[in-house]
Amino acid sequence: MEQLIVQNLILAMLESGVYNTELEELHYTTIAEALRDLEREQIEAALALFPSALSGEIFALLEPGTQEDVAEHLTSDALAEILAEMPSDDRADLAKRLPDEVMDAALLHLDEEERQDIEELTAYADGTIGSIMTTAYVAVPHTVSVEGAMSLIRQEASEAETIYVNFVVDQGGKLLGTLSLKRLILSDPKSSVRDVMNTDVITVEDHADRELAGELIARYDMLALAVTDAQGVLRGIVTHDDILDVINQEHTEDMEKFMGITGAHEDNAYLRTPIFTHFKNRIGWVLGLAVLGFFTGAVLKGFEGILQQLLLLALFMPMLADTGGNIGSQSATVIIRALAMHQISFKDFFRVIGREIRVSLCTAVVLATVAFGRVMFLAGDAELPTNISIFAIGATISIALAMQVVSSAIVGSMLPLLAVRFKLDPAVVASPAITTFVDITGILIYFNLARMILGL
Amino acid sequence: MEQLIVQNLILAMLESGVYNTELEELHYTTIAEALRDLEREQIEAALALFPSALSGEIFALLEPGTQEDVAEHLTSDALAEILAEMPSDDRADLAKRLPDEVMDAALLHLDEEERQDIEELTAYADGTIGSIMTTAYVAVPHTVSVEGAMSLIRQEASEAETIYVNFVVDQGGKLLGTLSLKRLILSDPKSSVRDVMNTDVITVEDHADRELAGELIARYDMLALAVTDAQGVLRGIVTHDDILDVINQEHTEDMEKFMGITGAHEDNAYLRTPIFTHFKNRIGWVLGLAVLGFFTGAVLKGFEGILQQLLLLALFMPMLADTGGNIGSQSATVIIRALAMHQISFKDFFRVIGREIRVSLCTAVVLATVAFGRVMFLAGDAELPTNISIFAIGATISIALAMQVVSSAIVGSMLPLLAVRFKLDPAVVASPAITTFVDITGILIYFNLARMILGL
Repeated sequence: MEQLIVQNLILAMLESGVYNTELEELHYTTIAEALRDLEREQIEAALALFPSALSGEIFALLEPGTQEDVAEHLTSDALAEILAEMPSDDRADLAKRLPDEVMDAALLHLDEEERQDIEELTAYADGTIGSIMTTAYVAVPHTVSVEGAMSLIRQEASEAETIYVNFVVDQGGKLLGTLSLKRLILSDPKSSVRDVMNTDVITVEDHADRELAGELIARYDMLALAVTDAQGVLRGIVTHDDILDVINQEHTEDMEKFMGITGAHEDNAYLRTPIFTHFKNRIGWVLGLAVLGFFTGAVLKGFEGILQQLLLLALFMPMLADTGGNIGSQSATVIIRALAMHQISFKDFFRVIGREIRVSLCTAVVLATVAFGRVMFLAGDAELPTNISIFAIGATISIALAMQVVSSAIVGSMLPLLAVRFKLDPAVVASPAITTFVDITGILIYFNLARMILGL
Repeated sequence: MEQLIVQNLILAMLESGVYNTELEELHYTTIAEALRDLEREQIEAALALFPSALSGEIFALLEPGTQEDVAEHLTSDALAEILAEMPSDDRADLAKRLPDEVMDAALLHLDEEERQDIEELTAYADGTIGSIMTTAYVAVPHTVSVEGAMSLIRQEASEAETIYVNFVVDQGGKLLGTLSLKRLILSDPKSSVRDVMNTDVITVEDHADRELAGELIARYDMLALAVTDAQGVLRGIVTHDDILDVINQEHTEDMEKFMGITGAHEDNAYLRTPIFTHFKNRIGWVLGLAVLGFFTGAVLKGFEGILQQLLLLALFMPMLADTGGNIGSQSATVIIRALAMHQISFKDFFRVIGREIRVSLCTAVVLATVAFGRVMFLAGDAELPTNISIFAIGATISIALAMQVVSSAIVGSMLPLLAVRFKLDPAVVASPAITTFVDITGILIYFNLARMILGL
């Protein structure tokens, strides 16, 4: 439905002061998206009118900034009512961000169970699986029958994040197996859950990296992944939909890392991140590489004599440098993605480098030909020292360019492979670093060739 | 379970020639991963021993190259048996890749229904939603009761990709609503499905871009998305797990596009892509930018006189150029991701540019200070023309660097925003293009400043 229509329905509801049943059939995402553009007071009034289960879901989807703003203006009573109905993972995220006094006041209005849940989940460090899991799953005692499990599931259906995968536990809460609703409705109601449950369960530990949860869910096409502590006691679950957010955030981090930008992306929208944080995340590599750039200048200084004799050579430096940077970054990008998608691993080192050399040789032939043509036909009128022919200069530039292309491809493809060898994220091999590095090798290649071929 | 143990179980099965029931409890992904390292003959023999439903699932997870290799060596009879049990989306993908004569022979052994399914799905163009959807869903006639729907679902459970979301259709196959298994088990068995189904259905058209399916599934936390034709007739579904692959492929494409690499990534593993395709995908931008690099040289030629008078200036060119490229690419990366995650849109244009200017001003101050220090303390011994002081040179370089930083940030952040304004993918704003572009502006800034400040 059009956002505008939904907004009008909400405004009509606010005017009349009664929950509009036309809104009932809508997905909570649709309502949350329509609410985003309204004023804080309107959002507060709407949340008060919606049934509280719906308010919890909607509130979880508001922008983090709006959430904080609204939460700080609500009475602690009203805030507690919303918190009680929020998905437990989103609730823990919010609890971490709210001022302590706001949160403490609201906690007083919550059940012991919910207080404990918030306490447990907020204790997990950002980036761990514990920090993204939810505790709203159905735990089935291992002693019940299929029928018993079904009635338990019906009871808990409105609270649980999913009822399609359920978790069989022993008295101590230890995970014994999973029980899909599919298996349940296909099994004899009288049989024991122990006999129908799946015991080859894929689980993950609560303190592991959240990226691992994404990988497992994707690899095994799971709806929900069981999260246990080191003792095998079930602590929570991660559902398929939470993983999409994680994957998108991880992708942003990878891409930024590759551009030399540090910092995590937990819920940090671009516009809400302070200017200083943006600056801090970006300055590191930029400054380091600028300093390395001075070093490039120092290398270049060693060839000042050659430049003085033939300034024409300087004119091709930007082209050589940029091309090297492009080739190296392209190779690195392709290899980083192939590594991330498990298409290659370190054991393919020589095969990969071999392929990149072959690809770059094709590129080198094309570029060297173009460069030679450019020099011969368009720089033919340059004033040259008597002992140097334009042909020799063309040859120098073409050969330098070809060597630059191939060596940059080797550098760009080798670095991410070496990174995984040393158990680093391949994306730490930042493109700016490759660019600066091949600048230096490019200058060395270029002026040494000039020295040899042109006898400068 | 360890891959090696699973491999040993499979080898034991091959030796004995009987399906090992120990394998029964394993996830098909685990078995498929263990099979990957075996010889083609072993894979063939194993597929023949597994129950055919399992063989279909396992086969779908083998590397595309292995699939083709095995398929071409199987009898058309055996291939048909596997095809009959493969998920319909994976089957259509394979059908597109197999030689016509292999596929035609196998089709003869398949049911009319399956033949038609393959025909329909292979007709969709790559990149469309139709090309990733499956037809293995449960269609519930709108006239049945909840009880009737449940027994239909039980019947089709083994074939359907999901039974957690089911689809209510009229006689003409038109989609009327969705019916989650949750709603079904919570409803009165006697009520009509029309009364309990959800009618606010999010659907998508079969010829739309597959990226849209990913966005909707993520936004609405869906298990399965209904795909209809233009008339609203249900054609297939896309499930949550298929979307993870799509998202990962799209990420690869985005990142590569940003590095000036073209080409799609439908199932194309790095090592299987021919060298020439790699070359073709990368040469376009590289060649174009190399040509633009010659233009940079031409711009530089206009300042040859200045360089001849003060060659020292050339030594700082690589640092200036690289820094500009880094800053511009960083800004572009951050903005592209913020756009992709819907954190900003074109209407935030001035706000975003304003923020990027402020971030870059901080960076400019730091870098200009460092550059000034570098020139004053480390280039102090350079031989200078009498009318030029080292202080003036330091000032020139610092100011040029600061201006380069801020202008590169503006260019890098402006281009992706303009791209979305003109309905282009923001990632078309390739980092190499930004780098080359700011090289030229950097040279103009630098040498014009040198002319003004140093009077060259």
